[in-house]
Amino acid sequence: MADNGEKIMNKIVSLCKRRGFVFQGSEIYGGLANTWDYGPLGVELKQNIKRIWWKKVVYERDDVVGLDSAILMHPRVWEASGHVAGFNDALVDCKQCKSRFRADHLIEDTLGIHAEGKSVQELTEIIHNNQIKCPVCGEVAWTDARVFNLMFKTHQGVVEDSSSVVYLRPETAQGIFVNFKNVLDTSRVKLPFGIAQIGKAFRNEITPGNFIFRTREFEQMELEFFVKPGEDMEWFEYWRQFTMDFFLSLGVKKENLRLRDHSPEELSHYSKATTDLEYNFPFGWGELWGVANRTDYDLSKHIEYSGKSLTYFDQEEKRHIVPYVIEPSLGVDRAMLAILCDAYREEEVEGETRVVLGFHPDVAPIKCAVFPLFKKEPLEELARKIYHDLKKCYVVEYDNTGSIGKRYRRQDEIGTPYAITVDFDSLDDHKVTIRNRDTMQQDRIGIDNIKDYLRDKLGF
Amino acid sequence: MADNGEKIMNKIVSLCKRRGFVFQGSEIYGGLANTWDYGPLGVELKQNIKRIWWKKVVYERDDVVGLDSAILMHPRVWEASGHVAGFNDALVDCKQCKSRFRADHLIEDTLGIHAEGKSVQELTEIIHNNQIKCPVCGEVAWTDARVFNLMFKTHQGVVEDSSSVVYLRPETAQGIFVNFKNVLDTSRVKLPFGIAQIGKAFRNEITPGNFIFRTREFEQMELEFFVKPGEDMEWFEYWRQFTMDFFLSLGVKKENLRLRDHSPEELSHYSKATTDLEYNFPFGWGELWGVANRTDYDLSKHIEYSGKSLTYFDQEEKRHIVPYVIEPSLGVDRAMLAILCDAYREEEVEGETRVVLGFHPDVAPIKCAVFPLFKKEPLEELARKIYHDLKKCYVVEYDNTGSIGKRYRRQDEIGTPYAITVDFDSLDDHKVTIRNRDTMQQDRIGIDNIKDYLRDKLGF
Repeated sequence: MADNGEKIMNKIVSLCKRRGFVFQGSEIYGGLANTWDYGPLGVELKQNIKRIWWKKVVYERDDVVGLDSAILMHPRVWEASGHVAGFNDALVDCKQCKSRFRADHLIEDTLGIHAEGKSVQELTEIIHNNQIKCPVCGEVAWTDARVFNLMFKTHQGVVEDSSSVVYLRPETAQGIFVNFKNVLDTSRVKLPFGIAQIGKAFRNEITPGNFIFRTREFEQMELEFFVKPGEDMEWFEYWRQFTMDFFLSLGVKKENLRLRDHSPEELSHYSKATTDLEYNFPFGWGELWGVANRTDYDLSKHIEYSGKSLTYFDQEEKRHIVPYVIEPSLGVDRAMLAILCDAYREEEVEGETRVVLGFHPDVAPIKCAVFPLFKKEPLEELARKIYHDLKKCYVVEYDNTGSIGKRYRRQDEIGTPYAITVDFDSLDDHKVTIRNRDTMQQDRIGIDNIKDYLRDKLGF
Repeated sequence: MADNGEKIMNKIVSLCKRRGFVFQGSEIYGGLANTWDYGPLGVELKQNIKRIWWKKVVYERDDVVGLDSAILMHPRVWEASGHVAGFNDALVDCKQCKSRFRADHLIEDTLGIHAEGKSVQELTEIIHNNQIKCPVCGEVAWTDARVFNLMFKTHQGVVEDSSSVVYLRPETAQGIFVNFKNVLDTSRVKLPFGIAQIGKAFRNEITPGNFIFRTREFEQMELEFFVKPGEDMEWFEYWRQFTMDFFLSLGVKKENLRLRDHSPEELSHYSKATTDLEYNFPFGWGELWGVANRTDYDLSKHIEYSGKSLTYFDQEEKRHIVPYVIEPSLGVDRAMLAILCDAYREEEVEGETRVVLGFHPDVAPIKCAVFPLFKKEPLEELARKIYHDLKKCYVVEYDNTGSIGKRYRRQDEIGTPYAITVDFDSLDDHKVTIRNRDTMQQDRIGIDNIKDYLRDKLGF
């Protein structure tokens, strides 16, 4: 990470903690590595992102239905999906200082070459041939690379034997595949159609990090979009573009987004084509949304392992087919981090630094703040009336403490698009001042017109 | 369960599966015991319930903020909370047929006396003294009762040693307590105030069951409402009544709800008073929403175990206090089951049985259905136009298959409050027929007035 990037990340992490977006998990017990709790503002920001995704992916479409499957699934699911055998990371230990690294990350960080997906033999060779030094102690004393399965394991029932082993799902996608037939039978969907799901997943990552970018417990928004074989690349292109449009529509800057197509060597064995929508985080470009053409791999595997007929009857061709599937898979926490990073800015205003989270109104946790100019009646009475009235439509905050300037700065820092101030004139002219977070321009608006004004500006 | 109750439960389970509310988890692999997946309609019903709870508990109030803490927490959290030492069930095995039972349930089911909270010695004695027969094989050959901890255990990191043991949280509440200070420092809340959270929790129950009533993986909506000591019983009463009002406002029948105060023997050791809001399920009265006055037990324990100062500075009395807490804790899945059971009814209509889910409009997964009388243009074109127009405001369904009668029945079964039919007259008089699910009455309404009509009826 460049020095400047690290400085900005530290500022964002600090703002998130100070203003109640994200706290370290179990902080009063020294924290549990890599867990994060979302505070009062973080939970609103996260809910807004999930709500917008669901709206655009399910409600606004005619061809997608929702699902919410269990985190705990039958272990055979993960045999069929290949996770039991193949969901591994290759690790190496430094024999000198005992530090442990993901082999591919070690190679990427020190040699700058892409190493994801290589075999343990290949990784071991690359590390050996290039005499990579341990980033911690500087020695060259590596063990061979070895594989570790990334699924969290637990036991269901009261006896801890192998028959009761269950895994915490490492992705929500398989919950969709195993319900393919259920949805087909109950929802009268027709190809092409999608099944969407939001839910937690767990991966026992070796080196999680970068705040909420890579965490062991995370939330996914996944869509499995089933199509006729032959129409798959067309739909792949469609969803590839969808990911870019989604973030652009939330005001994320175009120059911070890029679509990166996977090279043939990089592709997972089940994938015909994969593109990552990447965001330019302060620590570098990182995957935000993966779009993969998984072909009929998953359904075929579940047909093989379950012995059930997970096919679709094509009315036109009068035959049963196994659909292909396009999977756009987005991490909620990552989406939130990208939106936070993109919104963060510092400005010089009259010799002072103003910190702003320039959120798109749709994602902003608080849509509007209401201030009485002073903590005095009848100013407060009128301000509270306006506050309660707006609260029926929007998430609004009331603040009567400190100077107006300080209150503005606080709302800027948490990304509130508008702030309404009730002053003494308001008592006579029935008007208030509405200040725009970005332009800092103030409009004088009749109290009866506040709702229309906000509806117009906030767009809903 | 009475025979009739069992019959009704079977019908509800079957309807849930047939219409895409709830599927058995991992069904194609024979199911994973006691896991359930929510289908396209189930996920909407569940989301509506969560949204309404959040609206009433967070958005409509000035004194509650939200939180979303991690499922994986530091193990010390569960030592402090008492879960490591005391979150146990007592089990007995039949030596004859090897069946395993929760000792308290065995006693309750066979003797009809309340046994929850009794010690293993007491339970063993009761079973022995009453010569309880095994419900499976009829023998009297019990082991002594033994305790099993109900927390799911897993390992974080790559080495499976005890230092990396973490638990799946058995309740969301502790995530709130450990963030008490964080919220206090960042949200400028003042006593009394609450922190609300919705999230998954896991309990390795010995005898889960009754469909989605008692599951190992479940979702909670918990509020921890912090108050000054001395004001706690007043707030306890307030939240006690809140639970009843909440379900009544969603149209749940008064006669199916009751508040049951725990007797002194029944109270948990940390609780000064507890009331359960119970629902009269087809299998009997069951806990829906527990309201407990937990006093300062939790915060005091976390102060003791973490060494951190989790106190509140009382401006009036100029001293630090440890607040008391009132906890209303509601299960999402249970709330959904109660709403499903309460909505289910069968009616005789013209010699046929009509099955209806009489959902309150706020919880109904689909608010309105749109039908063209026949699958023909230009009927379909007009119907589709109305459908897409309504879709901007509501979750709406389009159906052009089968007879109108059949389509009405289908919407009745999934609880859709209104159905709009476009017929040939509509092309001339620009009116449609809107049918009310409950009264089956049909109104003829101008196409331009549909939205006003629905807004009026649906109340939003």
